[in-house]
Amino acid sequence: MLESLKKEVYDANMELVTKGMVIYTWGNVSGIDRKTGLVVIKPSGVDYDELTASDMTVVDFDMNIIEGRYRPSSDTKTHIRLYQAYKSLAGIVHTHSAWAVAFAQAGMAVPALGTTHADYFYGEIPCTRDLTGEEIETDYEGNTGAVIIETVADKDPMEVPGINVKNHGPFAWGKSPSEAVYHAVVMDKVAEMAYHTLALNPQVKNAPQYLLDKHYSRKHGSNAYYGQENEKGRRI
Amino acid sequence: MLESLKKEVYDANMELVTKGMVIYTWGNVSGIDRKTGLVVIKPSGVDYDELTASDMTVVDFDMNIIEGRYRPSSDTKTHIRLYQAYKSLAGIVHTHSAWAVAFAQAGMAVPALGTTHADYFYGEIPCTRDLTGEEIETDYEGNTGAVIIETVADKDPMEVPGINVKNHGPFAWGKSPSEAVYHAVVMDKVAEMAYHTLALNPQVKNAPQYLLDKHYSRKHGSNAYYGQENEKGRRI
Amino acid sequence: MLESLKKEVYDANMELVTKGMVIYTWGNVSGIDRKTGLVVIKPSGVDYDELTASDMTVVDFDMNIIEGRYRPSSDTKTHIRLYQAYKSLAGIVHTHSAWAVAFAQAGMAVPALGTTHADYFYGEIPCTRDLTGEEIETDYEGNTGAVIIETVADKDPMEVPGINVKNHGPFAWGKSPSEAVYHAVVMDKVAEMAYHTLALNPQVKNAPQYLLDKHYSRKHGSNAYYGQENEKGRRI
Amino acid sequence: MLESLKKEVYDANMELVTKGMVIYTWGNVSGIDRKTGLVVIKPSGVDYDELTASDMTVVDFDMNIIEGRYRPSSDTKTHIRLYQAYKSLAGIVHTHSAWAVAFAQAGMAVPALGTTHADYFYGEIPCTRDLTGEEIETDYEGNTGAVIIETVADKDPMEVPGINVKNHGPFAWGKSPSEAVYHAVVMDKVAEMAYHTLALNPQVKNAPQYLLDKHYSRKHGSNAYYGQENEKGRRI
Repeated sequence: MLESLKKEVYDANMELVTKGMVIYTWGNVSGIDRKTGLVVIKPSGVDYDELTASDMTVVDFDMNIIEGRYRPSSDTKTHIRLYQAYKSLAGIVHTHSAWAVAFAQAGMAVPALGTTHADYFYGEIPCTRDLTGEEIETDYEGNTGAVIIETVADKDPMEVPGINVKNHGPFAWGKSPSEAVYHAVVMDKVAEMAYHTLALNPQVKNAPQYLLDKHYSRKHGSNAYYGQENEKGRRI
Repeated sequence: MLESLKKEVYDANMELVTKGMVIYTWGNVSGIDRKTGLVVIKPSGVDYDELTASDMTVVDFDMNIIEGRYRPSSDTKTHIRLYQAYKSLAGIVHTHSAWAVAFAQAGMAVPALGTTHADYFYGEIPCTRDLTGEEIETDYEGNTGAVIIETVADKDPMEVPGINVKNHGPFAWGKSPSEAVYHAVVMDKVAEMAYHTLALNPQVKNAPQYLLDKHYSRKHGSNAYYGQENEKGRRI
Repeated sequence: MLESLKKEVYDANMELVTKGMVIYTWGNVSGIDRKTGLVVIKPSGVDYDELTASDMTVVDFDMNIIEGRYRPSSDTKTHIRLYQAYKSLAGIVHTHSAWAVAFAQAGMAVPALGTTHADYFYGEIPCTRDLTGEEIETDYEGNTGAVIIETVADKDPMEVPGINVKNHGPFAWGKSPSEAVYHAVVMDKVAEMAYHTLALNPQVKNAPQYLLDKHYSRKHGSNAYYGQENEKGRRI
Repeated sequence: MLESLKKEVYDANMELVTKGMVIYTWGNVSGIDRKTGLVVIKPSGVDYDELTASDMTVVDFDMNIIEGRYRPSSDTKTHIRLYQAYKSLAGIVHTHSAWAVAFAQAGMAVPALGTTHADYFYGEIPCTRDLTGEEIETDYEGNTGAVIIETVADKDPMEVPGINVKNHGPFAWGKSPSEAVYHAVVMDKVAEMAYHTLALNPQVKNAPQYLLDKHYSRKHGSNAYYGQENEKGRRI
C-alpha cells in the first residue's frame, strides 16, 4: 500500500545523506497520505545503505503499525502530533545536522540576518523551551510535538517551516517529504551563516524588516515573482 | 542566437555548483554580448541538474525576453545596471556562498589581510550600505545595482572585482562569465581566511600597503610577471 | 590465524579513512580474540592504501608478535592495558580527529549539551590529566592506558565509550572493532557540535539530567526502544 | 632531462589538489637534483588540470630556464634561496592553505599544543617578521627566502619542516617533493587544531616539553620506534 508515498519518503530519507545532514541512522523523514490519514516513516535504527523503499513503515495516528516489518522511527509520535495540528503539512523531517544543533544546544533562535534566511523563513527560527522532567517521563515524543506547536503558536507553520527543539535539534516540514528535507537543508545553511555572522559582529541585529518582507514576498504569496509558473499559474 | 555565449554562461553556472558556491537554485551567472547589447542569464528557480545551455534566457537592457522559455533570474536587473555602468564587464555572478555572506550579514568589509587577497582584490572588499525601505519598494533589483555602483564609487571595478550587498551576499564580475565565477570563488576563500584571522587576532590590521601593491602589480598591469604570456603579449 | 578478526580490524581501520577521521597513517584500530587473549592491530606507519587484511599484526598481552610481518602500532600497549582492565571491550580505536583533538589540547571535557551526545555517552566525555615526565619516560604507552583507566574510574566504560587523552587525542571503544570506530566518529561529531555551542553561548550548561537520562535509556539498557530487536530479543 | 624528478614534482603538485591544499593555480612544489644543482618546479599560473609532468620547468640557481616551455613559478627564487641555504632539503612547497594562512595573516606562530604537532614539528611553527618596503621593492622573492632563513635561525630546518611567511602563507620542505607536500598538509591540519583549541581555551599553553620531546623522538632520530624499518635499518 501507498507504494508511491513510500518511494517519496525513501528518496527524501536518502537525500538527507546526500546533503550531508545525517550520519549513520540519525534523522528521519515521514510523509502523510491525507485521504487515509496514514503516515509513512523511516524505520528506527536501520542503516541507510540497507534501506529500501519497501522498508518504510506505515502507521496510523494511534501508532499502530499498518504495514512494514520494522518498528517506526522512535520519533514517530512527534511527527504525528504535527500532522494532527497542521493540515497543510505533508512531509516532516528530523535531523541532527551540526549547525542547527549548535543553536538548539545553545538554546538560541537563529536570527534573521539576511536574504538567504528570508527567502524561506519569515522571521527568526525559534528554539523551544526545555521540556519538563514530567513531560519527558510521561510522553517524551508526544510532548516534543506539543512543545513545537506551543512555540509555533499562532504563526502559520509554512511561514517558518522549521524549528529547533531545545538541546535536541531541528524539525522541519513542507508540502511534501522532499520539501521538508529542502527546508531542513536550508535551515542548517542559514544557521551556519548566522553562526559566523554572530562571531564577526556579536551586536548584529536582524536585517531590516522591509528587506525581510521583500525577500519573503518575492518567493511566496500572490505577488511572488521568483521562479517559474506552471500551466495552472502555481509557482514551482 | 548567441549559442556560444549561452554555453559559456551555462558552464559558468555549473561551475558554481562544482566549486561549492551554491546549493539548490541559489546563485546566477550572466554574460553580455556587447555588440548586440543582449544579456544571457540563468533562468529563475530552475534546478541546476535540469538546466541545459539552451535554457539560458536572453534579455535586452529593458528586461524584454528576446529568447528563452523561462523567466530570467529575479536578479537580472541588478546585472543589467552593472553592465550599463561598467563597459569592461562581460560576466557577472551572484551567489549566497557562506563565508562571503557572513561578512555581508555582519555589514563588514573583508579586510585585505594578506597576499591571497591582494593577488585579486586591490584593497578591502567593501560592503554596501543598507537599502532604504523606499529603494526596496520601488525598484529592489535595480537599486541593488545602484548601491553597488555607489559603493564602487570612483574605483576601477576590475581592481575590486566583487562586493558584498548588505544583509544579502556577494556580486562578482570579470571579463567573462567564467572569470566572474573565478572571482566569486576567490572572494569566498579570502573571506574564509579573513574570518579565521580576525578570530585569532581581533586587532589585526590590513597587510602593509607595499605588500598589497607588490602582489597586485605582480599579477595585474603592465609590469605583471605572474603567469604566462600568449602570442599577443597579453597575460593569460 | 584469526583471519576473520583480521578482516574486521582491517575494515574498521579503513572506515576511519572513509569517515574522515584520519589522514596519512594516523589512527589505529584493534580487536581482541578473548578466547586466545590475542590482539589484532594495525601495523605502525604503513599507508592505508597499501594495507591489506593480512597485514594486520597479531600480538599477545606481552607485546610479542605472534603473527605478521610488520611491527604493531606504536600505541599497542595502550590498547592492551584497556583490554586487560575492561573485559567488555572487544575493539579499541585511537585517532587524531580534529574536533576531539581540539578538546584534548584545550584540556577540557566535552560537555553533554544535547541528545546527540546523550544517545551514546552517558555524561561528559572526560579528558585525562597530564602524564608526568616520569610516566612518559618510563612507559609512555602503558601509562597512557593507565591514565585512561584512572579517568574512567568507577564508571562502566561502555557508558562513556570514548575519552580524550590530554594534549593527545581520543581513544574510543566498543563491543567490536567497528563499534569502536562508530563511537570515535560520534565522539568527533558531538565535539564539533559542543565547540560551536560554546562559541554561541559560553555560559551554556549541560542539558537537563532528565533529558540526558531519557535519551541514553531510550537506546541502552533493558527499557531501550530505539532500533530493532533481533530474533533473540537483543537490540541491534 | 631529469624526467624522473619531473614526474615526482608533477605528482607532488597534483597531490596538493587532491589533499585540498590549493584551488586554481595557487601553490607550487619544486624538487632539486643535487648532482647538477638544477631545480624542477611548477610553471607559473597554469591550471592544474592542464599540467603534465613534461610541463615542469627546469631552472638553475641563477633562474635561467634550462628546459621547459613555460616560465617557472613566480616564487622560484624563494625556493632557490632555501635550497642554497639548506643542503638537506630536496623538495619545497608553497601553498595558500586556509588554516595555515589564518596564522600567517594574524602574524602568530602555530603553538605546539599536542602530539599531532609534535610528531612532525619540534616546537612552534614560527611566522616570519614583515618584510620591509625596501626588501619587497628590491628583490621580493629572494628576500622572502631570506626572511625564512632568518626565522629558522640556528635550528635544523628538518626539525621544523615548515614556516609561515607573514601576511602570506606557508612554505614547507622535506627530503623529497612528496615529503614537502606531506609536511604542508600536516602543517595545515595542526594549524586547524590549534585554531579551535585557542578558541576553546584562549589561555592554553604549549604542551609539556617532555611530551613534545617524547613524540618527536618516537618518530625521529636514532631512538625512533614509530613505523617500520627497511632492509638498511632506515625508518620508512
